[in-house]
Amino acid sequence: MKMNQFVIIGLGRFGASIGQELIELGYEVLGVDRDEEKVQEMSRILTHTVVADATDEDTLRSIGARNFDCGVVAIGDDVQASILAAILLKELGVKKVVAKAVSELHGRVLERMDVDRVIYPERDMGIRVAHQLVSPNLLDYIELSDKYTIAELGVPACLAGKSIEETNPRGRYGCSIVALNKPKGMIVAPTATDTLAEGDVMVVIGTNEQIEAFQDAIGQ
Amino acid sequence: MKMNQFVIIGLGRFGASIGQELIELGYEVLGVDRDEEKVQEMSRILTHTVVADATDEDTLRSIGARNFDCGVVAIGDDVQASILAAILLKELGVKKVVAKAVSELHGRVLERMDVDRVIYPERDMGIRVAHQLVSPNLLDYIELSDKYTIAELGVPACLAGKSIEETNPRGRYGCSIVALNKPKGMIVAPTATDTLAEGDVMVVIGTNEQIEAFQDAIGQ
Amino acid sequence: MKMNQFVIIGLGRFGASIGQELIELGYEVLGVDRDEEKVQEMSRILTHTVVADATDEDTLRSIGARNFDCGVVAIGDDVQASILAAILLKELGVKKVVAKAVSELHGRVLERMDVDRVIYPERDMGIRVAHQLVSPNLLDYIELSDKYTIAELGVPACLAGKSIEETNPRGRYGCSIVALNKPKGMIVAPTATDTLAEGDVMVVIGTNEQIEAFQDAIGQ
Amino acid sequence: MKMNQFVIIGLGRFGASIGQELIELGYEVLGVDRDEEKVQEMSRILTHTVVADATDEDTLRSIGARNFDCGVVAIGDDVQASILAAILLKELGVKKVVAKAVSELHGRVLERMDVDRVIYPERDMGIRVAHQLVSPNLLDYIELSDKYTIAELGVPACLAGKSIEETNPRGRYGCSIVALNKPKGMIVAPTATDTLAEGDVMVVIGTNEQIEAFQDAIGQ
Amino acid sequence: MKMNQFVIIGLGRFGASIGQELIELGYEVLGVDRDEEKVQEMSRILTHTVVADATDEDTLRSIGARNFDCGVVAIGDDVQASILAAILLKELGVKKVVAKAVSELHGRVLERMDVDRVIYPERDMGIRVAHQLVSPNLLDYIELSDKYTIAELGVPACLAGKSIEETNPRGRYGCSIVALNKPKGMIVAPTATDTLAEGDVMVVIGTNEQIEAFQDAIGQ
Amino acid sequence: MKMNQFVIIGLGRFGASIGQELIELGYEVLGVDRDEEKVQEMSRILTHTVVADATDEDTLRSIGARNFDCGVVAIGDDVQASILAAILLKELGVKKVVAKAVSELHGRVLERMDVDRVIYPERDMGIRVAHQLVSPNLLDYIELSDKYTIAELGVPACLAGKSIEETNPRGRYGCSIVALNKPKGMIVAPTATDTLAEGDVMVVIGTNEQIEAFQDAIGQ
Amino acid sequence: MKMNQFVIIGLGRFGASIGQELIELGYEVLGVDRDEEKVQEMSRILTHTVVADATDEDTLRSIGARNFDCGVVAIGDDVQASILAAILLKELGVKKVVAKAVSELHGRVLERMDVDRVIYPERDMGIRVAHQLVSPNLLDYIELSDKYTIAELGVPACLAGKSIEETNPRGRYGCSIVALNKPKGMIVAPTATDTLAEGDVMVVIGTNEQIEAFQDAIGQ
Amino acid sequence: MKMNQFVIIGLGRFGASIGQELIELGYEVLGVDRDEEKVQEMSRILTHTVVADATDEDTLRSIGARNFDCGVVAIGDDVQASILAAILLKELGVKKVVAKAVSELHGRVLERMDVDRVIYPERDMGIRVAHQLVSPNLLDYIELSDKYTIAELGVPACLAGKSIEETNPRGRYGCSIVALNKPKGMIVAPTATDTLAEGDVMVVIGTNEQIEAFQDAIGQ
Repeated sequence: MKMNQFVIIGLGRFGASIGQELIELGYEVLGVDRDEEKVQEMSRILTHTVVADATDEDTLRSIGARNFDCGVVAIGDDVQASILAAILLKELGVKKVVAKAVSELHGRVLERMDVDRVIYPERDMGIRVAHQLVSPNLLDYIELSDKYTIAELGVPACLAGKSIEETNPRGRYGCSIVALNKPKGMIVAPTATDTLAEGDVMVVIGTNEQIEAFQDAIGQ
Repeated sequence: MKMNQFVIIGLGRFGASIGQELIELGYEVLGVDRDEEKVQEMSRILTHTVVADATDEDTLRSIGARNFDCGVVAIGDDVQASILAAILLKELGVKKVVAKAVSELHGRVLERMDVDRVIYPERDMGIRVAHQLVSPNLLDYIELSDKYTIAELGVPACLAGKSIEETNPRGRYGCSIVALNKPKGMIVAPTATDTLAEGDVMVVIGTNEQIEAFQDAIGQ
Repeated sequence: MKMNQFVIIGLGRFGASIGQELIELGYEVLGVDRDEEKVQEMSRILTHTVVADATDEDTLRSIGARNFDCGVVAIGDDVQASILAAILLKELGVKKVVAKAVSELHGRVLERMDVDRVIYPERDMGIRVAHQLVSPNLLDYIELSDKYTIAELGVPACLAGKSIEETNPRGRYGCSIVALNKPKGMIVAPTATDTLAEGDVMVVIGTNEQIEAFQDAIGQ
Repeated sequence: MKMNQFVIIGLGRFGASIGQELIELGYEVLGVDRDEEKVQEMSRILTHTVVADATDEDTLRSIGARNFDCGVVAIGDDVQASILAAILLKELGVKKVVAKAVSELHGRVLERMDVDRVIYPERDMGIRVAHQLVSPNLLDYIELSDKYTIAELGVPACLAGKSIEETNPRGRYGCSIVALNKPKGMIVAPTATDTLAEGDVMVVIGTNEQIEAFQDAIGQ
Repeated sequence: MKMNQFVIIGLGRFGASIGQELIELGYEVLGVDRDEEKVQEMSRILTHTVVADATDEDTLRSIGARNFDCGVVAIGDDVQASILAAILLKELGVKKVVAKAVSELHGRVLERMDVDRVIYPERDMGIRVAHQLVSPNLLDYIELSDKYTIAELGVPACLAGKSIEETNPRGRYGCSIVALNKPKGMIVAPTATDTLAEGDVMVVIGTNEQIEAFQDAIGQ
Repeated sequence: MKMNQFVIIGLGRFGASIGQELIELGYEVLGVDRDEEKVQEMSRILTHTVVADATDEDTLRSIGARNFDCGVVAIGDDVQASILAAILLKELGVKKVVAKAVSELHGRVLERMDVDRVIYPERDMGIRVAHQLVSPNLLDYIELSDKYTIAELGVPACLAGKSIEETNPRGRYGCSIVALNKPKGMIVAPTATDTLAEGDVMVVIGTNEQIEAFQDAIGQ
Repeated sequence: MKMNQFVIIGLGRFGASIGQELIELGYEVLGVDRDEEKVQEMSRILTHTVVADATDEDTLRSIGARNFDCGVVAIGDDVQASILAAILLKELGVKKVVAKAVSELHGRVLERMDVDRVIYPERDMGIRVAHQLVSPNLLDYIELSDKYTIAELGVPACLAGKSIEETNPRGRYGCSIVALNKPKGMIVAPTATDTLAEGDVMVVIGTNEQIEAFQDAIGQ
Repeated sequence: MKMNQFVIIGLGRFGASIGQELIELGYEVLGVDRDEEKVQEMSRILTHTVVADATDEDTLRSIGARNFDCGVVAIGDDVQASILAAILLKELGVKKVVAKAVSELHGRVLERMDVDRVIYPERDMGIRVAHQLVSPNLLDYIELSDKYTIAELGVPACLAGKSIEETNPRGRYGCSIVALNKPKGMIVAPTATDTLAEGDVMVVIGTNEQIEAFQDAIGQ
């Protein structure tokens, strides 16, 4: 089943960003916030917007919340409103409800409400930024599992002009270069003779330790 | 040059998360906040913490801010404090300064302060969540460029038991499976005869359109 | 299993009243409130009192909340604090948790937290007062079921001097006088010749309609 | 004289509950509150509602307060408003005035205003809850006098299958079972051979000590 | 019985003025206020001062309020505190309690508390000032009854040099000059030949109309 | 010159009382206050009322302040507004300006503004109340000079039935009874044979010491 | 290029004064402030005024800020608003932007925004006042450089009647009188025989030390 | 008489700037403010500082305010405190009192307090800035009288290389160049052959019209 219609409760920076991206991806979005100013600002961007208190059952009913495929509770700091909006969306029959939590405890309460997914944006973003800070070449990464990571690494000066064979991350550290992004285009599954240039971006897959060792070796 | 010592200005959820992750990664972190309660809470976690107003030059000097390799201005909503702390860290000679921005305009001011990197955590996290919401199989992704994306996709029931050859994403949609994460271990560069099981995770690389087409095909 | 040790979260009028009564009934009570003034006032009455934020897990742990047989969340208007304190008490392993709710929605969230009993003091008290207001002779009552009620009725002047046989509520309205409280003592299961005096109190059992008909007959 | 028309000053949770119950009992109710939101919410339920300051004599006069049989001052925490509204209702000639008090001292002032009945809902409800907490079988109770109580007790497993004769509360503890509420119906004045089943409800009358002894005996 | 010991609740301008004057008249005064600053300021002037909440029974008891001959409730705008302090002083057995009221309704409540005298300082002072404003010669006055007034009138230029006989207020307007205050001394019961000088002050007794007519005659 | 038209700045209790009394005395009064509620309340009583900021020159000009014979600055606690309104009224050419002061220092500033009369209502009323408190028979009094006072004294039981000759205040204490107010009428300049009755009121003139001695003698 | 059209952001005392003077000098001025009251007050004086938030890019665009020759950011204490308004004016292409700073740090941030001139009105005015305070004859002055000053000095009594030759500031102290302002007119470049009179004003040019020495000599 | 000791009431930006400059000029300064933080900040700079309320007579006395030669009331927005501090300094006998005013009306009140000089820093600075804004070459100026001004003008490119004779401001516009500030030094009373260079600064004296005409001519 594909989601088509979204209702976003809370149009702060996080909720507004979700809404705007969903619109750009071609979906219909109803934005709800108690704050008239925020609603007005988003009314130019979202499909529909309404100034309403999403902790009031009658209100949610009257805006037809039950007809949405997915509800996003993106309320910022008002834990009470977040909890009440989440339980109401679930009870109204919204198929999928995701909600932002501001603390572990808040997240546990949301899970008791049968919220389908709890998101900790500041915590997750903080972790991502920390990794990038300590690895100057690390552009982005996905933790595939507790053990494996896929990392996007900038090619440093010390590797410039070397072939993948010479660099040999698989032989030396155990991790593989699965793609090489060069200005002229992406090379998926590069061969041993493909040459690295400064500013190219390598997509590397391996265990956390393997990638870390590779990063350390090229990070000076 | 590797970063070893970090000073984090602002110990809200975002700054606290960065600090905690840096500590877990084995770095030294000084946490600074005006709010005594937040400082006390983080004092158990960070190397050093201090209650201080980071918009006061003498204060920053007295806590030796200049000796840090990297300063993170993670101040939440107080744009003024964010700007003043950023310019002070730069003027004191901190090598790398990254700062959180709450709006485009705020970000532009920070760039005029020569801040090395401006981060928009809520905006970026919102975009990431939006993509995951509309693609039930999408677990995570990295935008490698405007055109290319690497995506982590759950294997849906409809693909269970099929080999990569049968699935043939490269032939049908142009994108390649560069890794296959199965419960028993990661298969980097899987071969045509490797078989998919429900719950396996595919790492797919391709253009945005290719990956989208593949997702659409398997997303029902 | 008998409850022996109680922890009360929130020392407002409702929580304070529960605590004071429990003490008079011979139980040990720990009172917790964020408000120093309220704690100080109750410190003369309860076994132990502590100024603490009951929405902080470490705090609840450090005051040994888990060792209590029963936790009462009597927090007034702060719905968020009420919910967080309730989930924490449950997760810490307190055997029985009862909590005050200020609205139906609040009550439903508390039930999702597996709270053992949700109390609506103002609502219940309002219903009780309403019944007494419309029936001048009604002193108190218990709803035994949807159908049956036991009521404590003052004997009005019009019944003074009549025997139970003459009054005959069972014959006329179907309800029975199961006790008669006279100044000189209680008559349990009074006989037909026992005589009513103004100011005596009858304990009457019957269906709601029977008791209402009897009240109407004697209520002028 | 029967009350027919009620004016309720203060539409908080307590006042709203009284009003709603009076309506359900078939009476006319005028609700008064300074808070427009509360008035609007109750306007769907009560006969009439008005946004007004009940401490202003002219206002009370203009809404015809004097024509009501009974005035309920259900103002929450504003002691001053409670006192002023009470004296005004009395001076305007309302036949019966009942008022909520938040403290003993507040209650004493209300009594000096010749208020007909002073109610302490949180205190009374707290006492009632305390009794139920310490006696797992106690469902509800009425204090008939300082000495006598009528209690509604759940039949515990240990009494299941026993006849009233075998249980013999009168012989052993001095208190009598005046009614037995079984799923199939109420047995008023049960006989010695009536049998108890788990989940039945006994209505017991006796002195406080007798009932307590009986509860203790069956409470393990 | 003569009053010797006074307790003043509320050390605003009115209470402070009473206290200071009582001290100058040679009495002992205890001043009580919740505001530490006001108490400190009056501590140099009054016999004793204490920072305390006079609406708390235990507090009043602990400062020995019952031992005072007279209690003055001079609380400014906090009607609730005024009422509670007044009832507590009465209940504690203070022989005489006077209290300031800020409105008629407040005054009526205080009277129900059996306050011995209710004072309306701003209202009374306003009336007094109004009279002086409209009669340029009127220095001060006492309303002896609804009908009679004693007035202190400055002698205007138009009467300068005239004897009382010539002025003849008794013959012309019916009011009598009972005293004549001249720079060299007071003439009680002046005779017909005593002469008026500009700046002398006449003490005149008569009905309101008589004095008004006299004032009008000399007021141009 | 007689005052006919008054403008009152500040419609608190003091200003409202002056305004109401002036109206009852037959004068025209314009009431000015920033507080719409106060203005509305007085609009039923005063000739004209206006919601305005009396510290704004243009505003005062536009309401024609300069045409009034007398301006009363009765502003309560806002010393700044009081000073600015006073200087503006003087500069606009209002013939007579009187102003309320809340402290000696405030009064001295007002005098520098050439305010015609500075009034300290709370201070003066406090002094008057203090005198009445210590002298149970003292009903009211006027200080004619530093030395002389005229006092209105209730006749106590101990003087009942005595003639003025027997009482002889002039002989014993030096002060004279200039009038005797009896239920049936006022006796101005009573003779030696006029008899006092309990509840009569004596008007006594004399030095402060003489009157005090007389009060002491009859005050037991 | 001459400036013709000015937009002033912030209509506090400083901004209002600039605006009023520009109008008197014959220029067009648009005044912008968030505070409706301030805008209304200035609407009688400035060419155009608008209530707007100058930190919002769309707002600045919609009022055509880019068409102005010069923008003055005269915002008082809100450092954030000052910085954001400044960067927006610069980015919109306003030719010249001057801004008020409240601290050195604020000023440095503004300079990073490429603000053309940063003004510290309170600081500069304070310096100017300090100089005048310590030199009773100093009326005004311009610091031409670190070394040279031009000062406007009142002629004191001790110089009255002396010719410039006799006074001889150039010979004695090294500074020159370049103009002499006498009641009957200005003498530019006065000659040695021009005579000084008390109350004349000398315009003196010289080094700081020379002028100070001259002032000291004539300052007794 | 020379001022030696200064007391500054109010250590905001204006007061702090005066204080700092007086210290640099070699005088003793006592700084007084109610705000502890401001006092602490200035304590490193001024001779003495004290946290005190300067509207309290006893306080001013106790810090020996009367012994100062000059008092500066630099209080920012609290008009009341400014007025009260000013009258107290005058009454205590401080020889010279200068005070900052925030409005014309405030200034008029201060003048009634006999304040020796009233300063309007924001207004005066605003006027100065306005003049500089409209004349790109105008660096600073002094208004010598209503008619005459002395202006410091930058030499624009169009005058570069011309001698004073060629420029001839006196002949063309009537105003004279009394000094010419060149990088190598100041030329007082330059001769006709002195040559102007871009970036030199001319000191010009003349009537407002003459200088304006000269500025217009060189301002393109």
